[in-house]
Amino acid sequence: MSTGKMILPRTGIGIDVHAYAADEEPRPLWLGGLHWDGERGLAGHSDADPVAHAAADALFSAAGIGDLGTHFGTDRPEFAGASGVTLLAEAARIVRAAGFEIGNVAVQFVANRPKFGPRRQESQDALSAAAGAPVSVTATTSDGLGFAGRGEGISAVATALVYPSQPTGIG
Amino acid sequence: MSTGKMILPRTGIGIDVHAYAADEEPRPLWLGGLHWDGERGLAGHSDADPVAHAAADALFSAAGIGDLGTHFGTDRPEFAGASGVTLLAEAARIVRAAGFEIGNVAVQFVANRPKFGPRRQESQDALSAAAGAPVSVTATTSDGLGFAGRGEGISAVATALVYPSQPTGIG
Amino acid sequence: MSTGKMILPRTGIGIDVHAYAADEEPRPLWLGGLHWDGERGLAGHSDADPVAHAAADALFSAAGIGDLGTHFGTDRPEFAGASGVTLLAEAARIVRAAGFEIGNVAVQFVANRPKFGPRRQESQDALSAAAGAPVSVTATTSDGLGFAGRGEGISAVATALVYPSQPTGIG
Repeated sequence: MSTGKMILPRTGIGIDVHAYAADEEPRPLWLGGLHWDGERGLAGHSDADPVAHAAADALFSAAGIGDLGTHFGTDRPEFAGASGVTLLAEAARIVRAAGFEIGNVAVQFVANRPKFGPRRQESQDALSAAAGAPVSVTATTSDGLGFAGRGEGISAVATALVYPSQPTGIG
Repeated sequence: MSTGKMILPRTGIGIDVHAYAADEEPRPLWLGGLHWDGERGLAGHSDADPVAHAAADALFSAAGIGDLGTHFGTDRPEFAGASGVTLLAEAARIVRAAGFEIGNVAVQFVANRPKFGPRRQESQDALSAAAGAPVSVTATTSDGLGFAGRGEGISAVATALVYPSQPTGIG
Repeated sequence: MSTGKMILPRTGIGIDVHAYAADEEPRPLWLGGLHWDGERGLAGHSDADPVAHAAADALFSAAGIGDLGTHFGTDRPEFAGASGVTLLAEAARIVRAAGFEIGNVAVQFVANRPKFGPRRQESQDALSAAAGAPVSVTATTSDGLGFAGRGEGISAVATALVYPSQPTGIG
């Protein structure tokens, strides 16, 4: 088959998990680019937002240019305490600089709480603005099973589509 | 780059977990749109089919219009006890009404049992008919690890591709 | 909408989990198509490479033609001890023979170790050569949570895009 030049998307996957902070060291909860007042926070060097981190990792994965550790590791200390929104925006910039357009990102997180529905649009708006592309965010529980079900932490899984900025051919 | 008008897919992700029903309250097992005679059932308000639910969530995620809780929550009690096939068909209808075509859905579930291979095609046929698009279903184990490995429940993860019904441009 | 003939991708999902081998039966670690000297190995009939296995499962899933069990089950004993790279290459051959081109595969694994970054490109090169298409590999931890966090095993999740070798229409 000869298809000529066309734009083919690339898929990526991103997973991120953060444990809840210890009671002795309370932290604010950041999830989906939003602060959740009165909710128990997650532990981590940054704001520990698993939704934003999974979205960034999915973009890197789709572009094939490494992961969060590659780009925000110890050689870039200025990102050590960065917010998830900041990391996602920088990830999107890096992916575009590597020669890709961003199609969309979809993230689902698994947690017993907070109740996400009333703020979904606010979360999607914050992350979409950061990525410069549509980011959908959804929530589910694990029916009481596993570490998320026991309330030990929150996991998030993301997929992303990116496109080479220059058409390529298959076939 | 100017690419003109073209159709770009959007990716989505869906995760669903159901715990096995307690021995004191036995239920039938519904998985992948099929009833599995003689197998221990999963707990839940509906038929607790994690494969059908993950597929529906992936469609909603790809379209960016919320999740199962958004669309089948307490304001639509007529779906409280609906089958997974019914929920998937309704999810596909909602996604199309929101302006998307459905490309395909792929679901993998993690469980020690049942033995899925002999009924895979039957399952794929049932879910594809519900979605009006190809739905692939695959199975794996977790090598005895985690809640699926301990036989506490079944998890399923799905991805989906949808397309805007009207061409859009990037670049 | 009439879009005429065009090439539409299909998405797939693959998950694979392997437990660490018992101390009494030490094995080499194979991960991402590479041997990791001095690292504790995973249990399994084959080389137990969860990254390569998840990639192969994602390709089968995208094509809708079953899973690892379907293609490398007891009726093909010649693959019982095959390496992950061999299985991935054979999976790619089967998917192409079924009428699909392979776009790309993206895999992320969850493990406390080994330190993956220094060998990422080597891993991606090995798996991309096997698949005949770009395979990206990324790594994360689960912040000490779940079976991966407790060091009981390694999980990997993959997505893939494939394209029918013959154009198809939607709309």
